[in-house]
Amino acid sequence: MEVIDLRSDTVTKPTKRMRQSMADAEVGDDVYEDDPTVQALEEKSSELFSKEAALFFPTGTMANQAALMAHTKPGDEIILEQDMHIYMYEVGGLSILSGLQARQLPSENGQLQPMQVQQAIRPENIHFPETTLICLENTHNLHGGTVLSKDSIDRIAKIAKKNNIPLHLDGARIFNAATYLNTTVKELVHGCDSVMFCLSKGLSAPVGSVLVGTKSFIEKARKCRKLLGGGMRQVGVMAAAGLVALEDMVTRLQEDHDNARLLAQGLDEFSWINVELEKVQTNIVRFSFDNTYIFDGDFQLELQKHNIKVNFSGDGRVRMVTHKDITTSQINKTLDIIAKL
Amino acid sequence: MEVIDLRSDTVTKPTKRMRQSMADAEVGDDVYEDDPTVQALEEKSSELFSKEAALFFPTGTMANQAALMAHTKPGDEIILEQDMHIYMYEVGGLSILSGLQARQLPSENGQLQPMQVQQAIRPENIHFPETTLICLENTHNLHGGTVLSKDSIDRIAKIAKKNNIPLHLDGARIFNAATYLNTTVKELVHGCDSVMFCLSKGLSAPVGSVLVGTKSFIEKARKCRKLLGGGMRQVGVMAAAGLVALEDMVTRLQEDHDNARLLAQGLDEFSWINVELEKVQTNIVRFSFDNTYIFDGDFQLELQKHNIKVNFSGDGRVRMVTHKDITTSQINKTLDIIAKL
Amino acid sequence: MEVIDLRSDTVTKPTKRMRQSMADAEVGDDVYEDDPTVQALEEKSSELFSKEAALFFPTGTMANQAALMAHTKPGDEIILEQDMHIYMYEVGGLSILSGLQARQLPSENGQLQPMQVQQAIRPENIHFPETTLICLENTHNLHGGTVLSKDSIDRIAKIAKKNNIPLHLDGARIFNAATYLNTTVKELVHGCDSVMFCLSKGLSAPVGSVLVGTKSFIEKARKCRKLLGGGMRQVGVMAAAGLVALEDMVTRLQEDHDNARLLAQGLDEFSWINVELEKVQTNIVRFSFDNTYIFDGDFQLELQKHNIKVNFSGDGRVRMVTHKDITTSQINKTLDIIAKL
Amino acid sequence: MEVIDLRSDTVTKPTKRMRQSMADAEVGDDVYEDDPTVQALEEKSSELFSKEAALFFPTGTMANQAALMAHTKPGDEIILEQDMHIYMYEVGGLSILSGLQARQLPSENGQLQPMQVQQAIRPENIHFPETTLICLENTHNLHGGTVLSKDSIDRIAKIAKKNNIPLHLDGARIFNAATYLNTTVKELVHGCDSVMFCLSKGLSAPVGSVLVGTKSFIEKARKCRKLLGGGMRQVGVMAAAGLVALEDMVTRLQEDHDNARLLAQGLDEFSWINVELEKVQTNIVRFSFDNTYIFDGDFQLELQKHNIKVNFSGDGRVRMVTHKDITTSQINKTLDIIAKL
Repeated sequence: MEVIDLRSDTVTKPTKRMRQSMADAEVGDDVYEDDPTVQALEEKSSELFSKEAALFFPTGTMANQAALMAHTKPGDEIILEQDMHIYMYEVGGLSILSGLQARQLPSENGQLQPMQVQQAIRPENIHFPETTLICLENTHNLHGGTVLSKDSIDRIAKIAKKNNIPLHLDGARIFNAATYLNTTVKELVHGCDSVMFCLSKGLSAPVGSVLVGTKSFIEKARKCRKLLGGGMRQVGVMAAAGLVALEDMVTRLQEDHDNARLLAQGLDEFSWINVELEKVQTNIVRFSFDNTYIFDGDFQLELQKHNIKVNFSGDGRVRMVTHKDITTSQINKTLDIIAKL
Repeated sequence: MEVIDLRSDTVTKPTKRMRQSMADAEVGDDVYEDDPTVQALEEKSSELFSKEAALFFPTGTMANQAALMAHTKPGDEIILEQDMHIYMYEVGGLSILSGLQARQLPSENGQLQPMQVQQAIRPENIHFPETTLICLENTHNLHGGTVLSKDSIDRIAKIAKKNNIPLHLDGARIFNAATYLNTTVKELVHGCDSVMFCLSKGLSAPVGSVLVGTKSFIEKARKCRKLLGGGMRQVGVMAAAGLVALEDMVTRLQEDHDNARLLAQGLDEFSWINVELEKVQTNIVRFSFDNTYIFDGDFQLELQKHNIKVNFSGDGRVRMVTHKDITTSQINKTLDIIAKL
Repeated sequence: MEVIDLRSDTVTKPTKRMRQSMADAEVGDDVYEDDPTVQALEEKSSELFSKEAALFFPTGTMANQAALMAHTKPGDEIILEQDMHIYMYEVGGLSILSGLQARQLPSENGQLQPMQVQQAIRPENIHFPETTLICLENTHNLHGGTVLSKDSIDRIAKIAKKNNIPLHLDGARIFNAATYLNTTVKELVHGCDSVMFCLSKGLSAPVGSVLVGTKSFIEKARKCRKLLGGGMRQVGVMAAAGLVALEDMVTRLQEDHDNARLLAQGLDEFSWINVELEKVQTNIVRFSFDNTYIFDGDFQLELQKHNIKVNFSGDGRVRMVTHKDITTSQINKTLDIIAKL
Repeated sequence: MEVIDLRSDTVTKPTKRMRQSMADAEVGDDVYEDDPTVQALEEKSSELFSKEAALFFPTGTMANQAALMAHTKPGDEIILEQDMHIYMYEVGGLSILSGLQARQLPSENGQLQPMQVQQAIRPENIHFPETTLICLENTHNLHGGTVLSKDSIDRIAKIAKKNNIPLHLDGARIFNAATYLNTTVKELVHGCDSVMFCLSKGLSAPVGSVLVGTKSFIEKARKCRKLLGGGMRQVGVMAAAGLVALEDMVTRLQEDHDNARLLAQGLDEFSWINVELEKVQTNIVRFSFDNTYIFDGDFQLELQKHNIKVNFSGDGRVRMVTHKDITTSQINKTLDIIAKL
């Protein structure tokens, strides 16, 4: 029986063309920088984002953590929005791996205000760590896939430059943001010193993320990747799928957004469900229940019986994510089943 | 010419009796646990706070950091109020020394709400660090020396116990809090698993802080102290001054509070100065300027010319702290000089 | 023109069957533990090594580092042979990632003596870190691919158990060791609490290593893997190649050993080359020059002109490694070319 | 009854003049750099060692660890003799506090050979940490208080400079070394970039060590000291004793050496005791037993009954250390008691 897996866009399976490209990939030992397919993916990535250099990683978490390591030194402080993936979902890595304190700033929709950031930068004082990085996330996962505009990023970039502090963007879903804004990723990340983006998730490659930035930054990140155990060998087999992801999958993200909107509007019609519709900008739909007697965990189990998988947060909220392997008819079926609960 | 040093109560000088006690102290090698004066201070401390054991430290910062180390393991997350000394003023130590992420919660007056804390405790999930410590600060330095009531602490202690997470109190100025509340420190910290308090600051010893808690916790903290380089030798000379501090200086803290109130009320009469009077509960007075053309740094320099030393925060706020070496007449003189600026 | 790449067995390219298996692999999101191919590989691995559980990693470095993390706590000391990969070639990871001190013991051929290990274990003392892990490497890379016998491992395992300290084996080339000893890996690693082995290198998978041990250890290692950024998604595509590696490639390692011996004996006949023949036990050949006027770097460049790639150590030694993509006729060709230098 | 405490020179008690100087010391808040007595001690120290700047620490362990932090960055490798205090007796601090790997080199008498050090320095390679510090210890505690000559230090300093790597000296007992060599500490440490020396131990101050080096290095070390919790307040009371130590105690170290020689020669006459006489250069005497039926722990307990305290290593060796509070007649009494065992 068909499973409708709305837990995350990380569950997307590789396409036929990706699988074929993996079987056919020309490879070499990438620790010796001998893998032509990896190099092709890294070149394409640096072009797409208009940054000097790029580096392939097994995961977005490793790419983010290597970026933190490469931008800072242990003992420093970094500034980030309080619900960012880097702080909330990366197992405390920024402290234990890189020795960083994370100054957490509150926000609406994940958008930090320039004044907030300016005030959080530490002056020189023997009691203070040095502030050496500012981080943003776009789209912002825990705020429901909300989008930071180019203008919003640029205003933070201006503060960063004024203080001579680099700006890193967790762009795990940056192509969703660019799709929503009807712009290019190049334009959107212009003010950022480094960007991580995922080839998995909406783009559907089985594995892999890419970090882009200056040449010297990427050289440092390469050594951090080795340290973290990400220096893989004939990894062109993975990069081949990543190349297909960039070629075939970017333009279809609008479908996921349309499906998410369809789902959100359908859910919103149920009197007992609250959807923050204005936050449904990309492929994530989050909602809570009007009736506090409904528990998110129970709701999840009920859907499970109908082979519909969703995530719940434990604080009464359910999350559904649309992606390549979710069709419009599955969205409608999901709404039908919820209507009968 | 007389200097009026209102920068901090850390500037207090040892009393004659302290100096004499240092000259007379019976000592031994405390790394071998052979120093009788250190042991006397530790016993007196554990009695005063009604905890099993106590340990002397060269600074409050080291005692706090050793407490974090002893309560947690690297990679964990701790919960604290966002403006706590442990996070803001200890050079990022919690990350680089102990590998901890600090979850920062906002508050009024430094008082965390139980629900806030409960929601910040991480459930089990492969993406999450484990929450293994909750920290409070009393009085709360960056909120202006505000006091947490016993009830307020106990409510957090209840959440902590329910989740099987220890509660550490940064009680650098806990005797000021007990004085304000007209209670004993023993009563006040009853719900805390560990407490750090300072012998310097208001109590005027030249050097030293003490950490109290269970025997097994203090044994761990002893090794952490050795690791941090705090395992001193014939340190009974310092402990002797600390014993005098506990005997002679606790009861006189009310004077500092009275002087702070006098100062705050005097400042509040100047139309161009804003004092948050309700936050002046102990020996710290903070104020800002009505006229945004007055810069805190300029104000500091102006007072300096009259041999009055104050600290400014850089965000437009000035801090004045009363202590043993500040008299009521110096407060009046300070107000006179400010009146003429 | 044909390249003879003797730098390392890490340069091996995936076989056709591996590529096909990657294209055909059934996959799922392995962070949700939904990938059947990864699970098949992990089950096969735990069976082969007769350990309770197994976990797939992108690299041997990450698997080693996660093993260190999972066995110890930051601040501990571990004991290892002074030239082990974990210490020498993993970018200092044991200190910066896991906060460990590595006690380095000298050896002949990588074989630690039980008494050496026993004496290096720290007694309880406030000045000492706790010894919480012993590590071995088999075959030992920097000693030239030398093999630890089952007996040699078991004697260290006995010391480890007596002191209640786990024993980890870096078995990147454990199948080469078992081939040399004409035994099974299961027999060979019986005394080890955890073992890392590589699917790349001699076994020729493009990417991947596996860690085996008890269930509770592997659960900890899973979280460490997530922390290090090794929690990949549809990674069954890689695991599929790993399964083929275990099925097809183990029995052919003897060929590599035969080729290495052929190469070593050929080199040994040149009067100006010194090969430590007794150390050529598996697929690694190391040699130095009689004539100190020959520099290893120059020798490397000279071979490069003939499309023969080798590594040099910088201390006058050259390393050649045989593997799947090196034939007996290439060995002979290499010897011919060296003869003419 | 009189106790003869030969465990260590750390047990020395402050002199009357030290105690008086503590009672009389002019002090200020040293975190604000306002303490004139601390400044006097730091000036005197930088003069004595002919280095630009100096910094007072509560312990030698903290001064060493702060020096490591200030010279390196986490992830680096440092080179040291395998039995150095920094590695063996500082609770693993170099790894957990500073993220350093320690390359341990074997030696006779603690004297590293230049070639050894040169070969241990890492070339550039993506697998390698960067070598950023070389450390020596003089006198060398675990080798029995043996002395490194100026020439021996200078040869290592030359290698260090050639490779642009700083050289740190753990000079906890550097005045003992200078006494033995009949030279000044200034001459002896000329090749070192930083030196730590203790005011306690032979010099008999109750607490404290000093780190000397360049101005920029000391500024970094000051922040590291704050991070480690060593930023004390009116610490001039301790510095005052340190000043007396430098004035009164240096010239009397020869007595301790004479007593140690007397003790060593006396012990050497017992047929059942082996003293390595050529290693008894300063104030430490180590010996083992001819008869392996004598256990070091039993020997210690036996002496304890006669109020003689000694340390044993657990590997069959006993250590006795002479110091200010040990007289020649106590040495003779000790020999008499051992004779009767």
